[in-house]
Amino acid sequence: MADSQTNSAWATLLDVGRPAGGGRRLHDRLAHALRTAIRDGRVTEGAAVPPSRVLAEELGCSRWVVTEAYGQLTAEGYLSARVGSATRVSWAPDPPPRGSRGRPSRTASARPPVRYDLAPGLPDLRAFPRRRWAEAVRSVTGSAVHYDLGLPDPAGHAAPRETVAQYLRRSRGADASSESVSVCSGVTDGLVRTCRALRAEGIGDLAVEDPGWGRLRDAATSAGLRVHPVPVDRDGLCVDDLARTPARAVVVGPAHQFPTGAVLSPARRAGLVHWAREVSGFVVEDDYDSEFRYDRHPVAVMQGMDPARVFLLGSVSKTLSPALGLGWLVAPPAMAPALRAANPVAAAPPVLDQLALATFIDRGWYDAHLRAARRRFRTRRDLLVATLGARLPHGRVAGTEAGLHLLLYLPDGTDTRAAVRSAAAAGLRLADLDDYRTAPSARRALVLGYGNMGDTDILPAVDLLRRVLRTPPRPHEGAHPAAP
Amino acid sequence: MADSQTNSAWATLLDVGRPAGGGRRLHDRLAHALRTAIRDGRVTEGAAVPPSRVLAEELGCSRWVVTEAYGQLTAEGYLSARVGSATRVSWAPDPPPRGSRGRPSRTASARPPVRYDLAPGLPDLRAFPRRRWAEAVRSVTGSAVHYDLGLPDPAGHAAPRETVAQYLRRSRGADASSESVSVCSGVTDGLVRTCRALRAEGIGDLAVEDPGWGRLRDAATSAGLRVHPVPVDRDGLCVDDLARTPARAVVVGPAHQFPTGAVLSPARRAGLVHWAREVSGFVVEDDYDSEFRYDRHPVAVMQGMDPARVFLLGSVSKTLSPALGLGWLVAPPAMAPALRAANPVAAAPPVLDQLALATFIDRGWYDAHLRAARRRFRTRRDLLVATLGARLPHGRVAGTEAGLHLLLYLPDGTDTRAAVRSAAAAGLRLADLDDYRTAPSARRALVLGYGNMGDTDILPAVDLLRRVLRTPPRPHEGAHPAAP
Repeated sequence: MADSQTNSAWATLLDVGRPAGGGRRLHDRLAHALRTAIRDGRVTEGAAVPPSRVLAEELGCSRWVVTEAYGQLTAEGYLSARVGSATRVSWAPDPPPRGSRGRPSRTASARPPVRYDLAPGLPDLRAFPRRRWAEAVRSVTGSAVHYDLGLPDPAGHAAPRETVAQYLRRSRGADASSESVSVCSGVTDGLVRTCRALRAEGIGDLAVEDPGWGRLRDAATSAGLRVHPVPVDRDGLCVDDLARTPARAVVVGPAHQFPTGAVLSPARRAGLVHWAREVSGFVVEDDYDSEFRYDRHPVAVMQGMDPARVFLLGSVSKTLSPALGLGWLVAPPAMAPALRAANPVAAAPPVLDQLALATFIDRGWYDAHLRAARRRFRTRRDLLVATLGARLPHGRVAGTEAGLHLLLYLPDGTDTRAAVRSAAAAGLRLADLDDYRTAPSARRALVLGYGNMGDTDILPAVDLLRRVLRTPPRPHEGAHPAAP
Repeated sequence: MADSQTNSAWATLLDVGRPAGGGRRLHDRLAHALRTAIRDGRVTEGAAVPPSRVLAEELGCSRWVVTEAYGQLTAEGYLSARVGSATRVSWAPDPPPRGSRGRPSRTASARPPVRYDLAPGLPDLRAFPRRRWAEAVRSVTGSAVHYDLGLPDPAGHAAPRETVAQYLRRSRGADASSESVSVCSGVTDGLVRTCRALRAEGIGDLAVEDPGWGRLRDAATSAGLRVHPVPVDRDGLCVDDLARTPARAVVVGPAHQFPTGAVLSPARRAGLVHWAREVSGFVVEDDYDSEFRYDRHPVAVMQGMDPARVFLLGSVSKTLSPALGLGWLVAPPAMAPALRAANPVAAAPPVLDQLALATFIDRGWYDAHLRAARRRFRTRRDLLVATLGARLPHGRVAGTEAGLHLLLYLPDGTDTRAAVRSAAAAGLRLADLDDYRTAPSARRALVLGYGNMGDTDILPAVDLLRRVLRTPPRPHEGAHPAAP
C-alpha cells in the first residue's frame, strides 16, 4: 500500500490531464509533465521513477504510453536507464534556481500615450499604400520561380537590383547598374557593409556630420571604424574641415542634411569629390529625404559626379515605411570584391520583399506614391511653418523647404531638454537638437518632424509646444496635465 | 553664322528627343543630356554653355526650359554662373576614365544548368506553401495598426515573439517567453548577435563542431571571436575535448549535426550543460533540422535543461525557405542587456514578414506544412538510401534517420573532390565532406541533401553519381556529357 500511495503522488505530480503542454498525445503530455517536474526540481536527481507498469496502472493508461515517455526523456538526457535497475532521474536544475532563471519580471514603464508626434524620422504611416503593397507581394509570391526561394544572393536578387538601378538613374541621376547596386535592409545596413569594406581597404577613420544621425555613427563604430565629427553649417558639411581629421572617407547627406535641413552647396559638392580624389578616399552619400523637395526640382545625387569615389545609400524607410526593411547601396565597381569579402555573412532582405519592391516600382506605384506624398508633406510643412510663426514668434524656422523635418531655433537659454520632457509627459513627442550633437551648444533648437501627423493635429500640437516652452517644468511633473 | 553652327553642335550633343533619360519634361531631359555630356567629358571644364536665349532658339523650346536646366545643373555643381559672365562648366570627370569607371564587363561564367540537386542545405522549394504565405501577408498588411509600420523593435514585434515562444514551448520543449525570444533573420544573424553579446561579456573564444557549417565559423569570426574546432563522432560533439580549448562557449547542433547527421547522445547533452556551468560559460544550440526526425519523436531542445546557460537558435530556412529570412534567438534572461547593448544597429526582419509568420503559425499552417514535409522527406530518404544501397554497394550511408541530408562514406582513396567537379559538369550538384572539415581527412565521404529534389529524380541522380565515381575525370572535361 505504501507503494500505491507513492505512485498516487506521482500521478498528482504528473498532471497530464491538461492538454496545454507538449502536444496532443498522452505520451507527449506525460513526457512534458515529467520533464517539467525535473526542471523545476520537484523530482530530484537520483530519484527512481516508478516502473512503467505501475505508473501506467496509476494513471489509467497503457504501459506503452509510459515507456514512450520514459524513452523520450532518456534520449533527452533527463532519465537514465540501466539494465536490471530502476530508471532514475539523471538531471538537476542549476542551483540556486531563483532569480537567474525563469522570465524576468519586467514591469513596463508606464509611459503616457503619444497624442501628437512632432519627433523626426517617420513618414506618414497612415498613408502606407497597403492595398498595392499586398498586391505586389501576392503577385510575386505566385509568380516567383521556385529557385528564387533558395539561398538568396547576399547582394540581392537580380531583378530588383536592375529595377532599383533604373529608378536611381531616372529619378536621382545616379550612375547605377544592376552590378553596382546591392539591395540591403536600409541605410544603416548599407553603411555597415560599406564601412567593413573601407576597413578592408585600409581606411580606419570616417568623418561624420555634426550634428548628425547617431545611428550612422553607431553603424561605423560597430564596423570597427573610428569616427571624426565635422561641423555642418547652412551650406551643409564644412568640407574644408575634413583636412583636420585623419579620415579618408566621409558619410554625408547632401540632399537634406539631418537634422539641420541644410542642402550641400554646389561649390562644396565639387569640393567634396575633389577632396576624395586628393586623399584617395571615398564619399558615402546618404541620399536622405531627397525625394521631397518643395522649392525646386530635386538635385541629382553626387554619386553621378564620380561613381568611382562615391558610395550611394538610400531606402524606402522615409518614403514608404521603416518596417519594410528595404534599401540599396550603390558601390564603386572597383570596390565590389572588397564589399563581398568584408561581409561574408551579410544577408539580403527577404527575396519576396525584394521582388515586391521591384513590382511596386515597375508598375509605377512608387512614383505615384511619391507624388502624392510630396503634395501632402508640402502642404503640411507650410501649415506648420505658418502656425509656428503665428504662435511662437520667438522661434525661428531653419532648413530648406524639403523633407520631413525642420529646425526650430529658440532664444538662447531655453531649456529644450526640459521642454522635451514636459512635452512627453503631455503626450507630445519632440526632439532636442542637442541629441544629435556630439557636444551641447548654446544655440538651442528643436528638430520637428511633420511626417507622421495629421494636418488637423498641427494647431493643437503647436499650442501644446507653446505651453511647455512657457512653463518651466516642475520636477516629477504629473503624467497627464489638462488637455489642450 | 559661326555661332549658329556652334549651337547647332550643342543641339546635336544635347539630344533631348529621346525620353529615356531623366524624366518626362523637356527641361529635365535637357538637364539630363547636359549632365551626361559633362560626365562623359564631351563638354569639358571651363567651357561656356550657350546663352539660354540662343540655345532655346536652337532647340526650338522656350527660354524657360533652358534656364531651368541650367539652374538645376548649377545646384548640382556641374555649372557655375557668375553675374555678367557666361555660365561655364565647372566639373570634370576623374582622369583616366577607363577601367575604373562604368560597368564592369562581367562575363558570367557559363555554368551548366543544375539538373539534379543532391547538395545539402535546401528544403523542397517546389513545396513552398505559396498560397497560404501570400494569404498571411495579405491579412497582416490589411490588419496591422499603423504604428506597427513605424520604427521596428530590433528584437522583433511583440506578437510574433509570443507566437514563436509558444511554438518553441509546445513543439520543442523550450523554456521561452516573448521576453527571451528575439526574431532575427536566421541562424547566422542570431549567432552574430549572440557572439557579439558573448564578447561584451568577456568571452573571446568559441568552440565549433568539426566538421561543421563554415558559415557559423564565419559568423563568429565576423563578430570578433576566435573559433576552436572540436571533433564530432557518431554521438555528436566530443564534449570532453572542450577542455583542451580556451573556449567558454560552444555552438552545437544536438538535434541533427551538420554534416555528420549525428544526434548528441543523452550523456553528452547532460555533460555539455555541466561543462557550461563549470566554466561559467554558455552553450549556443543550433536547433538545425530538428523538425524532421523519422525514427522516433523529436528530442526536446537542450535549452530547456538550463535556460540560463543555453542560447537557442532556429529558423524557417530548412522548413519553408531561406528566402523568407526569418528565424529566432532565445537568450538567457540575464544576457538580455548585453544582447541589446552589443548589437546597437541590429535590425529585425521586416515587420510585415514577422506578423505573417505569426499568422502562419497561429492558423496551424506551419504544423500542417511540417507534417506533410516530414512524410515527404521520410519517403524520399528511404528511397535514396535504398537506391544508394542497390547502385553503390561500396558506399556506406551514415547519419540518423532525420533531417534533409545524409553522409555517404566511400572507399578510402576515392577522389571526392574530382567527383564533385565532374558531377557539376554533368548537372549534378554534390558536396564533399572535406568542404566542412577544417583539415582534410583520409575518410572520404559525400554529403547528400535530398530536400530539394523530386522523388523521380533520385534514380537518375544516383546513376549519374555512380558514373562520376567510376570515371576518373579528365582535366577540363566538357560541360555536357551524354544524358543519363
